Amino acid sequence: MTMSDGDGAAVQGYVAPGYEPVREALAAMLADDPSYAAQFCAYAAGRPVVDLWGGPDASGSSIQAVFSVTKAASAVCMALLVERGVLDLDATMARYWPQFAQAGKESVTLRVALSHQAGLIGVEPQLTLAELVDHDVCAARLAAQRPHWRPGAAHGYHGLTIGVLMDELVRRTDGRPLARFFADEVAGPRGIDFFIAVPDEQEPRVVDVLPPAPRPQGDPAPDVPAPVLEPDSLTGMAFAAAAQDPFDPPIGNLRAVRAAGLPAVGGAGSARGLARLFACCIGRVDDEPPLLERDTVAAVTQIQTAGEDLVLGMPTRFAVVFQKADARLRYGSHQAFGHDGAAGAIAVGDPWHDVAYGHVPRRMSLPGGADERGLRLAAAVKACVRTEGAMP
Amino acid sequence: MTMSDGDGAAVQGYVAPGYEPVREALAAMLADDPSYAAQFCAYAAGRPVVDLWGGPDASGSSIQAVFSVTKAASAVCMALLVERGVLDLDATMARYWPQFAQAGKESVTLRVALSHQAGLIGVEPQLTLAELVDHDVCAARLAAQRPHWRPGAAHGYHGLTIGVLMDELVRRTDGRPLARFFADEVAGPRGIDFFIAVPDEQEPRVVDVLPPAPRPQGDPAPDVPAPVLEPDSLTGMAFAAAAQDPFDPPIGNLRAVRAAGLPAVGGAGSARGLARLFACCIGRVDDEPPLLERDTVAAVTQIQTAGEDLVLGMPTRFAVVFQKADARLRYGSHQAFGHDGAAGAIAVGDPWHDVAYGHVPRRMSLPGGADERGLRLAAAVKACVRTEGAMP
Amino acid sequence: MTMSDGDGAAVQGYVAPGYEPVREALAAMLADDPSYAAQFCAYAAGRPVVDLWGGPDASGSSIQAVFSVTKAASAVCMALLVERGVLDLDATMARYWPQFAQAGKESVTLRVALSHQAGLIGVEPQLTLAELVDHDVCAARLAAQRPHWRPGAAHGYHGLTIGVLMDELVRRTDGRPLARFFADEVAGPRGIDFFIAVPDEQEPRVVDVLPPAPRPQGDPAPDVPAPVLEPDSLTGMAFAAAAQDPFDPPIGNLRAVRAAGLPAVGGAGSARGLARLFACCIGRVDDEPPLLERDTVAAVTQIQTAGEDLVLGMPTRFAVVFQKADARLRYGSHQAFGHDGAAGAIAVGDPWHDVAYGHVPRRMSLPGGADERGLRLAAAVKACVRTEGAMP
Repeated sequence: MTMSDGDGAAVQGYVAPGYEPVREALAAMLADDPSYAAQFCAYAAGRPVVDLWGGPDASGSSIQAVFSVTKAASAVCMALLVERGVLDLDATMARYWPQFAQAGKESVTLRVALSHQAGLIGVEPQLTLAELVDHDVCAARLAAQRPHWRPGAAHGYHGLTIGVLMDELVRRTDGRPLARFFADEVAGPRGIDFFIAVPDEQEPRVVDVLPPAPRPQGDPAPDVPAPVLEPDSLTGMAFAAAAQDPFDPPIGNLRAVRAAGLPAVGGAGSARGLARLFACCIGRVDDEPPLLERDTVAAVTQIQTAGEDLVLGMPTRFAVVFQKADARLRYGSHQAFGHDGAAGAIAVGDPWHDVAYGHVPRRMSLPGGADERGLRLAAAVKACVRTEGAMP
Repeated sequence: MTMSDGDGAAVQGYVAPGYEPVREALAAMLADDPSYAAQFCAYAAGRPVVDLWGGPDASGSSIQAVFSVTKAASAVCMALLVERGVLDLDATMARYWPQFAQAGKESVTLRVALSHQAGLIGVEPQLTLAELVDHDVCAARLAAQRPHWRPGAAHGYHGLTIGVLMDELVRRTDGRPLARFFADEVAGPRGIDFFIAVPDEQEPRVVDVLPPAPRPQGDPAPDVPAPVLEPDSLTGMAFAAAAQDPFDPPIGNLRAVRAAGLPAVGGAGSARGLARLFACCIGRVDDEPPLLERDTVAAVTQIQTAGEDLVLGMPTRFAVVFQKADARLRYGSHQAFGHDGAAGAIAVGDPWHDVAYGHVPRRMSLPGGADERGLRLAAAVKACVRTEGAMP
Repeated sequence: MTMSDGDGAAVQGYVAPGYEPVREALAAMLADDPSYAAQFCAYAAGRPVVDLWGGPDASGSSIQAVFSVTKAASAVCMALLVERGVLDLDATMARYWPQFAQAGKESVTLRVALSHQAGLIGVEPQLTLAELVDHDVCAARLAAQRPHWRPGAAHGYHGLTIGVLMDELVRRTDGRPLARFFADEVAGPRGIDFFIAVPDEQEPRVVDVLPPAPRPQGDPAPDVPAPVLEPDSLTGMAFAAAAQDPFDPPIGNLRAVRAAGLPAVGGAGSARGLARLFACCIGRVDDEPPLLERDTVAAVTQIQTAGEDLVLGMPTRFAVVFQKADARLRYGSHQAFGHDGAAGAIAVGDPWHDVAYGHVPRRMSLPGGADERGLRLAAAVKACVRTEGAMP
């Protein structure tokens, strides 16, 4: 592909020698779609090798709501507490949270609950937005709820509620809310530009998630998967707050949501922060030891469930909170783990290739979930890495 | 759609004010397919809002074999015994039925057995029709049988045998056969026009299930799913009595079958009875309290298994005996539960919308299972209900 | 179909009276594809009824590597040890093999491990070919490995490693390597022409597996399923030794592999041997009692897991090591059990029809797994058998 200087100039930022093809790939994407704008950052072997941004209103210094990519940051907190022996994945939820033992949930383990298998996708009646940002209300409601399926019998994406489960586990064992734990124990010490609760002083850096680009004339694709729009379906239970579609307008654009520290969907950050988060998990960064031991990473990234997702209506694979690669989420090797978000962002670490990356598009893509351009940029990074059979 | 008076006149019965569109929908279906005849009845908020019939030889006072819709009536008996503490879903079958603990079935729970997960889809050699109507023979054979899959490893529709399992549980704990228990404890006191064992005095009301209408010229669809015709397949094991195809002629048309009280497939009733049965389960009817407590309904309608059905070769979802909605059975909200039958009938309750309905077509449809016209009529009912966020 | 004498003459060997259609079917296949050559043998009711070979370089006296069909022979050893009470399918692997209790595998049972559910599809870093033929190295590496999925959460074909698991179980309980156990206890006493470890004196009979025939011009099918070629995928983990594609050249063509006695993939034999192996499992042969009791066969051929295979990326069904029939492997009745191999061979027993058969094509077919001509020949056999409702 030949690109004009003008197109190429749209990409800003840095690539390490040998990673020029990633810059070219991003430039080509920007040229293909004038509505596309994004940050993309990648680490290889513990150092930043790509740190790019481009497109209308893109910035290298902004942060943005990333919806469910927040779950990846929260999952790191779970992993840390498992590594420290504070949490045991094979213990029951009720061991840490006695009120959880209601309505047939006595024997639900952390392992089941943290891999979307508990059937606690929502509560009846559904939460209002005001309730959603009040952790104690959510936790009490979830503790009383009967699972929508026999725990362990299936899995379905707990889009909002898995954050409540994680938060309560941290609060019960550590005392701090999960968002505070993350800031104190993970992001702060490692200089990771990601916030589960965005502090006031970071607010000036926040840019809004933009609405999806209008469909081209004649595009037959539906704007949103229909089941999301049926509040009485399992999908509706998982996503629909009673009085608020979480994506219209995107709740992450609301200061109240960003301030609440919602571990499932409330975080904001930069691609730089997301890539660094995962780089710190899988290896040494800036001469600091990894955030997690190799065996912890193996334990929390082990596939816990795979197959048809009762909420999303398509196959998904979950480790302990983290997503694992499948045909849609081509994250990398079988060791790769990460998370995508409804607005298109992704954050991934791949121990096999010792690569970590984050992609934060400004604009929501439809029907939601990973903007596949992020996956293509990651593939371009991988192609630049000399792997030489490199493997743990 | 404009309908002539003539078409409209084909529909008989009652609709409450505001439910006229349901009458129109049925009229349109009758006009579209001159071979179609059916009863359709719906309750909303505990009162009958639709009670219609139409088409050739349709009657508002007849009853008819409904095959597997019988399982819904039997399931209500299971739910009642669970609510009363007589049965524990997490107990082993062998606790109530010691002989069940043969051939690797020692630890099979009611929960597993009653959600088509036990792998007891038939016996080898297969039952004859004479054996099928003899409960004690069936129970002894099933108790000795090794499951065709590891119990809990998968699910597959126990088309005939789940009735034997239910019946034995009732006989062992209550003393009465399930059909008698249903008549005494459910149908009789509530005036529900449904019979698991059809008594002699009801026989004059019975009309035959009619064979499927001839295919239009050039219709490429197969008349029956091929696997049903292979007696040595899992599907054949589940459906084929050794010497009798259960659907040709339909065994429900045999007086011996209707008299036997077979909880899986032997019942007969009207759409009115089926709708009332479910209305009584989910709410107050005629100022009587619900048949089941709300928490019992939640417990027995929780999804127990979902995914590819090893017998039917397509995805199915089962609660405790009840079917749950999926892409084929669009029963209503995620709370809806019910059952369809091989001859096309359905019976469903939907607590979310406080709606219950039954559809009993005269004529078998192919390839079997719910005649989708019943689902469309139910959708028409739902559209007429003012939901106003109504929800438990 | 009319065949010329010339085509018919290409088929050599024997068919019992009444089985002439099988000879004709094979002749037609040979005429259709000049590159096809194979042995096919079938038993019915304990006696050989078909013993045919044909095509270029086919022989009635050769033996050949059959890759994963070897697993069927190894599975018979597992079944024998279960029948003798030496192995308990519901015991943990660690009961027999204490070192197995590492990295979250403490509670993995034989039942789980022997049905491809343990998630032990490979080790990291991957085995070299030199390591693959050294059982003790493989066993130590597997014992230390963390499963790639939560054991029991899913299944995926353990193409190479299930052999290590079986071998270690035999060595720990019997003392002999599995290949020796098979020769001493199964093949030798019953005159079964199959070798998990091919002894020197049998080597002159070995013919190479031939590479796949070149694709016809314009054939759009890929030569090999793409995932096999990605060493960092789950599929790559299961199949790729680090320095050697196991199928290019086929490792079964290497004397070192055939000598090693690899229970997953190292065996060689004839179609005659494979058919006899299964005939001996399911019934009397030569007036000898069956190798396995009927109840043992039922226990080890019970479906243990079904659904999407995380390694193969398609649905599979496994019993205890044995494959069960599915849409791809139309082995026969629901009682049929067997195994296919990457080079196209199959070996199957079907108790319902009292038929056993083996098919050993000379040439690999793509994309690998059962050459469907073997299944068609088996169907031809079944059509010749008078079943008369014959069934156990």
